[in-house]
Amino acid sequence: MLEKVDLQKKLEKEEYRKRMDELAPRLGRLQRECQKWKIPVMIAFEGYGAAGKGVQIAELIQALDPRGFQVYPVKNETEEEKMHPFLWRFWTKMPAKGRIAIYDSSWYRKVLVDRFDGKTSDKETEQAYRSICSFEEQLTADGMVLIKIFLAIDKKEQKKRLEKLLDSKETAWRVSKGDLERNQHFKRYQDMNEEMLLRTDTAYAPWHIVEATDRKFATAKIYSIVVQMLESKIAELAEAARRAAQADMTVKEMDDQVPSASVEDQLLKESVLTKADLSLSCTKEEYKEKLKKLQDKLQKLHGELYRHRIPVVLGFEGWDAGGKGGAIKRLTQKMDPRGYVVHPTASPNDIEKAHHYLWRFWTDMPKAGHVTIFDRTWYGRVMVERIEGFCSKKEWQRAYKEINDMERDLAEAGAVVLKFWMQIDKDEQARRFKERQENPEKQWKITEEDWRNREKWDQYEEAVNEMLIRTSSPYAPWIVVEGNCKYYARIKVLETVVDAIEKRLEEKKQEEKGQKKA
Amino acid sequence: MLEKVDLQKKLEKEEYRKRMDELAPRLGRLQRECQKWKIPVMIAFEGYGAAGKGVQIAELIQALDPRGFQVYPVKNETEEEKMHPFLWRFWTKMPAKGRIAIYDSSWYRKVLVDRFDGKTSDKETEQAYRSICSFEEQLTADGMVLIKIFLAIDKKEQKKRLEKLLDSKETAWRVSKGDLERNQHFKRYQDMNEEMLLRTDTAYAPWHIVEATDRKFATAKIYSIVVQMLESKIAELAEAARRAAQADMTVKEMDDQVPSASVEDQLLKESVLTKADLSLSCTKEEYKEKLKKLQDKLQKLHGELYRHRIPVVLGFEGWDAGGKGGAIKRLTQKMDPRGYVVHPTASPNDIEKAHHYLWRFWTDMPKAGHVTIFDRTWYGRVMVERIEGFCSKKEWQRAYKEINDMERDLAEAGAVVLKFWMQIDKDEQARRFKERQENPEKQWKITEEDWRNREKWDQYEEAVNEMLIRTSSPYAPWIVVEGNCKYYARIKVLETVVDAIEKRLEEKKQEEKGQKKA
Repeated sequence: MLEKVDLQKKLEKEEYRKRMDELAPRLGRLQRECQKWKIPVMIAFEGYGAAGKGVQIAELIQALDPRGFQVYPVKNETEEEKMHPFLWRFWTKMPAKGRIAIYDSSWYRKVLVDRFDGKTSDKETEQAYRSICSFEEQLTADGMVLIKIFLAIDKKEQKKRLEKLLDSKETAWRVSKGDLERNQHFKRYQDMNEEMLLRTDTAYAPWHIVEATDRKFATAKIYSIVVQMLESKIAELAEAARRAAQADMTVKEMDDQVPSASVEDQLLKESVLTKADLSLSCTKEEYKEKLKKLQDKLQKLHGELYRHRIPVVLGFEGWDAGGKGGAIKRLTQKMDPRGYVVHPTASPNDIEKAHHYLWRFWTDMPKAGHVTIFDRTWYGRVMVERIEGFCSKKEWQRAYKEINDMERDLAEAGAVVLKFWMQIDKDEQARRFKERQENPEKQWKITEEDWRNREKWDQYEEAVNEMLIRTSSPYAPWIVVEGNCKYYARIKVLETVVDAIEKRLEEKKQEEKGQKKA
Repeated sequence: MLEKVDLQKKLEKEEYRKRMDELAPRLGRLQRECQKWKIPVMIAFEGYGAAGKGVQIAELIQALDPRGFQVYPVKNETEEEKMHPFLWRFWTKMPAKGRIAIYDSSWYRKVLVDRFDGKTSDKETEQAYRSICSFEEQLTADGMVLIKIFLAIDKKEQKKRLEKLLDSKETAWRVSKGDLERNQHFKRYQDMNEEMLLRTDTAYAPWHIVEATDRKFATAKIYSIVVQMLESKIAELAEAARRAAQADMTVKEMDDQVPSASVEDQLLKESVLTKADLSLSCTKEEYKEKLKKLQDKLQKLHGELYRHRIPVVLGFEGWDAGGKGGAIKRLTQKMDPRGYVVHPTASPNDIEKAHHYLWRFWTDMPKAGHVTIFDRTWYGRVMVERIEGFCSKKEWQRAYKEINDMERDLAEAGAVVLKFWMQIDKDEQARRFKERQENPEKQWKITEEDWRNREKWDQYEEAVNEMLIRTSSPYAPWIVVEGNCKYYARIKVLETVVDAIEKRLEEKKQEEKGQKKA
C-alpha cells in the first residue's frame, strides 16, 4: 500500500487555513455528538519515526474538549505490562462510551518496532496478528469507532529530520538508537509495515495512509479523516434508530431478530450436565485428610508460581447455592494473600456498562506469578445476559468466539486458565435454599432473585450446555464439578487446580532449561 | 469443544422414525425454497475416520432432489490440484446460487489429515488458517450458507469399526494406513481437530458437533441442523425483504446506505495517477531493438518457469484505448501457446452471476508452470461495479480485503502476480477514440459504452486511486504504465514481467537447493 503513496503532496498556507477553519469547529461539534450517541472512539497513530505523530496529535486535540479525550503514549512495555498478554495494556486504556482515546503508536508496535528489534518472534508475530484481528473485530462490532492513521515519509526525509533533531541539545534526546537503526534499514522496516497494513486493512477498521512530508497537508488530512469517520458512524446509528422507529421497535429488538440456527429438538441437543454423576461423594474423614494435603501442596506451589512467573486464572460458575463460595474459600485458605485476589462479579456498574463487556475482566487479569479467582465470570454474557435479554442475540452469539479468543490470549501469555461449573441438581438446590432461609446466619445468601432464576432452570441448562461445549478448550478447559456432596466438590476443585499448576510448572521449567541452553 | 461431548447418545428406532418422518419432507421443501431465494449452500462433513461421513451423506441426500445438489469426495490432492493454491479445488467446486454442494471431508483436510501426515508444515498451517477464515467470511458475507458438521466418535469405537471393516475382504480396502495410524495416535490427532474447531467456530460459520456413535442419532441430528440453518437463512432474507419493502427500497438499496467514511476533499485525496509522467516515450528504433531482446528473453524464461513449476498471473486494467490489447499481444508474441492463456474478462454471464464474483477468476487461475493473462480482471468489482452500482457499497468496500487475500493465497502458493494499469490522459484517449472511429479496421473496437465511460472519467479516477493504494502489495504489486507512447508502454510491461520472473526463478532455485541439501 505504501509504495503507491505520493509523499510530495502539500498544502499552501492559505488553502490549509481555509480547510482548518471549517474542519476544526466541525470536529468539535462531532465530539459532542459522539457523547450524545455514546460512541467510543479510538484513534491509533502509527508511522515512521519522526513522521510527526506527536505534532499531529497536538494539532488534532486543539479542536477537542479536553474533558472528553485522553492521549496515551505507547512506549516499551513496563515491567507490569510485560507480565500480561500484550493487548492487556490497551484493554485497560480503552475509552468509555462517548469518550475518545488517542494512541501515540499502538498495539501494532508488537508487529513493528518490537518485531524489528527481534523482541517478537515469528511465532509471536502470527499470534499477535490473530489477537489484533480479533481485538479490532470485537471492538468495532460492539460500536467502537476505530480510526487507524499511518503517517508516511520516505527514508531521505526521515534521515533529514533525525539529523536536525540530533543537531540541537534540546531535541537530540528524542532520537533513539532504534530510530537510527530503522532509518538505516528502512527497506526491512518498511516491509514489516507493509505486511501490517495489508493484513489488517479491513472494512470495519480500515487504514488511512497520510502523506506526512508536509505538516499542514497531514494535519488537514487527519482532521478530514476523523471528521468523516465520526460522521459516518453517527449517520449509521441515526439510520438504525430511524429504521427501528419505523418498525416500532428498539434497535436492540431489531438486533434480536437474528433468526435462530440452533437445533430445536431437546433430545438431539447437548446434555453435558446430565452426564455429571451427582452421587459422587466422600466422607468427612477422607475430606479432612485430603483437604490438608492439597492445601499444603497448593501453598508450596503458589510460591513456585511466583518464582516462575506463571499467571493463574480460575473462573467459577454454577447454579445458585452450587457451592462456589465454599470451594473458593477452601482453595485460598492457606494461600499467601499477597499472591492472589478474588473478584466477585456482580451486575456491571455504570462505568463497566460504558465499556465492552470483557473490559472489566481484562483489567482484572492477574500479572505473571499471581492468581486471580473470579466468582462468576465473563460467561455471564452467554448465560444471564442471554436469558434476561441484557444483550442482543447477535451479541451473545458472537461472544463464544470472543471469549475463546480472550482465553487463548491469556494462555499464549503463559497462563493457567481453568473454569469450574459447580453442578447440583434441582432437588439439592431446593434443599440448600430452604436451609439458607431457615438459618439466620445464612439468610443473607438467599434473595428473591435466586427463586426467580430457579424458575428458569431449563433455559439456563440449555445455555450452559451450549456454553460448556463451545468454550471448553485444551488451553482453558471447563471442569464440571459434581457438587451434591460439598466435600467431594471441594476436593475435586483443589485437585484439579494442583494438577494443572504442576503440569504448567513442569512445562515452564523445561522452557527455561531450553532457554538457558540456547 | 470435543471433550465435553456425550458420545453415548442414541435414538431408539421409533423415536428416530418419528423425527425423520417430519424432518425429511421439511428438508425437501427447504431445498425448493433455497432455489427460489437463490441461496447457495455448502455442507462440509468432517470428523474421525469411520465415524460415518459416507453413510450420513447418503442418508442426508435421501430427502433432496438430485438435480439440485452434488457430492464431492475430498481425497488426496490430484497432481492438477497440487499445482494450485489449496483452496482452488474448493473454489472450482462451489455451488451456484440455489444449489447445494456436499463435501465428504473438506478444506479442513489441510489442517487435519495433511497436517497429521506431516504434509502441512507449521508455517503452512498458519497460512491455511488465515486462508480458511478469509474464505468462509467472504462466502458467507456473499450469502452462502455454510454448514460445518463434525462427526465425533471415540478411540475405542473407532478401533472397533476399523477392525470390523478389516475383517471382511469386501470392506478391508476402505481402511487406509493413515486411518490406523490416526487411531493409534488418537490424542495427537484429536488435539489438531480441537484446535481447528476452536479457531474456526465463528458466528457466521459455526461448527456443529454430532455425536456419531449411534447412527440414527447422528442422522436425525444432522437433518435437524441442516433444516435449522436453511430456515434461519430464509427467515433472514425474508426479513430483509420485508424491511426493504417497508422502506420502499430494494434490499440492495438498503445495503447501499452504508454511510461514507472516505475523505471528501479532492485536494487531500490520493493521486496516484496524476504522478504518472506521460511524457515518457521511446523511438521506433529503440522499441524494435528492445522488443526483440525482451521477447527472446521471455521465451527462454517461459521454459524455465515450466521446469521450475512457477505459476504466473498477469492482470491488465486501464482506461479504454489505454493499450492493454497491444501490450498483451507483444507480451505473448513469442511465448509457447501451450504454456499461456489469455482470458478476456467481459461482463459476467448468467452462470458467473450465480456465483461469488471471484469464482470465475479462481477457476481460471494458472496451474504451476503456466502463465495466465487477464485482459481486465477481478478489479471490476471496485471499478465498474462500484461506479455503475452493480454491487452494493458494502460489497465493494469489503472487496479490497478479499482481493488482497486471494492474491496472497496465490503468492503463498508460489505465483508471480503482477497487475498493470495502462495509464493515458483524457486527450490521448480522445485522439485514439477518434482514430478508431475513422479507421474501418478498428471501428469494432469502439462502442457507445466507451463514450459513456469517458464521461465518468473523474469517478473512475477516484475509484482507481483508491484501488491502486489499497491493493498494491509486495506480493502482488500494481505497476502504473505510462501509456501515451505505446512503444514505451509495451517495453515497460515486458521489462517488468521479465524482471519479476527472473527474480522469482532465482528465489525458487535457492529454495530447491535448500531442499536438496536438507
